[in-house]
Amino acid sequence: MRNVSESSITQAVVSSFDGATDPRFRRIIESLTRHLHAFAREVNLTPEEWKAGIDFLYRAGQISDEKRNEFILTSDVLGLSSLVDMLQSDTGATERSALGPFHSEGSPALAVGGDLKQDNDGEPLLVHGRVLDEDDKPVAGAQLDFWQAAVNGKYWQQDPAQDPHNLRFRMTTGDDGVYAFTTVQPAPYSVPYDGPVGDLLRAGGRHAWRPAHFHFIVGAPGFRPLTTEVFFSGDPYLDSDAIFGVRESLVVTVAPNTDAALAKRYNLAAPFLSVAFDFRLGR
Amino acid sequence: MRNVSESSITQAVVSSFDGATDPRFRRIIESLTRHLHAFAREVNLTPEEWKAGIDFLYRAGQISDEKRNEFILTSDVLGLSSLVDMLQSDTGATERSALGPFHSEGSPALAVGGDLKQDNDGEPLLVHGRVLDEDDKPVAGAQLDFWQAAVNGKYWQQDPAQDPHNLRFRMTTGDDGVYAFTTVQPAPYSVPYDGPVGDLLRAGGRHAWRPAHFHFIVGAPGFRPLTTEVFFSGDPYLDSDAIFGVRESLVVTVAPNTDAALAKRYNLAAPFLSVAFDFRLGR
Repeated sequence: MRNVSESSITQAVVSSFDGATDPRFRRIIESLTRHLHAFAREVNLTPEEWKAGIDFLYRAGQISDEKRNEFILTSDVLGLSSLVDMLQSDTGATERSALGPFHSEGSPALAVGGDLKQDNDGEPLLVHGRVLDEDDKPVAGAQLDFWQAAVNGKYWQQDPAQDPHNLRFRMTTGDDGVYAFTTVQPAPYSVPYDGPVGDLLRAGGRHAWRPAHFHFIVGAPGFRPLTTEVFFSGDPYLDSDAIFGVRESLVVTVAPNTDAALAKRYNLAAPFLSVAFDFRLGR
Repeated sequence: MRNVSESSITQAVVSSFDGATDPRFRRIIESLTRHLHAFAREVNLTPEEWKAGIDFLYRAGQISDEKRNEFILTSDVLGLSSLVDMLQSDTGATERSALGPFHSEGSPALAVGGDLKQDNDGEPLLVHGRVLDEDDKPVAGAQLDFWQAAVNGKYWQQDPAQDPHNLRFRMTTGDDGVYAFTTVQPAPYSVPYDGPVGDLLRAGGRHAWRPAHFHFIVGAPGFRPLTTEVFFSGDPYLDSDAIFGVRESLVVTVAPNTDAALAKRYNLAAPFLSVAFDFRLGR
């Protein structure tokens, strides 16, 4: 290897991993190495440009903490996160969408029909639907993990005025697979624009906005966990989401609802605003 | 873009950068996006594997500081740093090699022929040669920036027993292009093995060793700066450098020297150990 050259180095790096015991790791690192090298060759990457890339990653590391992960955001704005979601999609199941950087573990439990709005600004909105299998049968005991931004477009991690438990919950469906909660419709949301990803977006002439959305992780024993988002028709950013998360099948319409039985069930005065969305889980 | 799909997302991301004002940035980000996506498709990257990659970067960020840059090290062990060096090599100039993660700015000045060894353990070694242009003419006023590990294989950043200025200097050549200093021969060096890069090497069945080496950055007005390394014949790791930095043309031999004039010039008792190496700068 003392004679490694421009033409032999890629194979030398690939071969250096020949001792890997996990064949899947071996395959991934080989593909990553080949594409990384092919990228550098294709653009004839200069040391200064390489350094700019290293500096990007270093700055991303410095700005990241338990509340903010600039590496996820980088993956998001380059469409990698969405691509990985798409590669995993099950036929018949709800389409996947971004986890995003603001999921946190340990959200408080909320009973089906519970109120998440509490003292948040905004008009109450009933969000309801069912968790179904691919044959449209209800999934009993499905677990929902939900989080959203407030009406100011900010998550609790970005907004000292919000309690750390604001606008997020875990919920377990009953035998009917029904989930329901009252909340507020979030506003469009700007991804963090003050770090290296912000610089990347500016250099690319891109804005930092995402259309307003809800985040859900839905799971149940025997099914593949589903990470997805729900968007709202009429949002100005549906066609230019900074992280490429929108799927047409995930866009819902908020509408006035006059259903007296629903109003009574969830302690609302009719007419009220509501959106309905069913999740379909794949096995 | 609300209809972005597995087949359209790569082009959607590329097109999102159409507003970039710098065409070189546009070209680099397009190539990077295409290769990143091609990698994910080629291995059918799962969300868990994507998460492992994000965690790798996050951990690299957490372990990095002014003294340690785990992102440079990642680039090094994947051969990217060496490839970038090779892509820039000038015909006729000294081959380039790795900057590595331990260069620091502001090294103390040392006069030509000065003693760098001071109270370091090890046998004194004279390192000398000339800075030349591609026609073998001396380069007057060339600047050398030098750093090395001690005989324990550690850089000052890794060793609380070393002064922060230990074993590094800046030197300016006179009209004859000559540089010279006395130091000690470093030992083979293990790249940091306690972070995510260490885990990567272990998973790949790779060791973390580099053959012993000197680091030089050599520059002069009108010439392209040269970042390179000098290695020692007989080193057990010359053929398995963890960062793919060895070039046969950069390997020197330490030998006893009986040159009385040299001994007198540099205040040594003959015979003494010496290595000679000339640098050739490209324009």
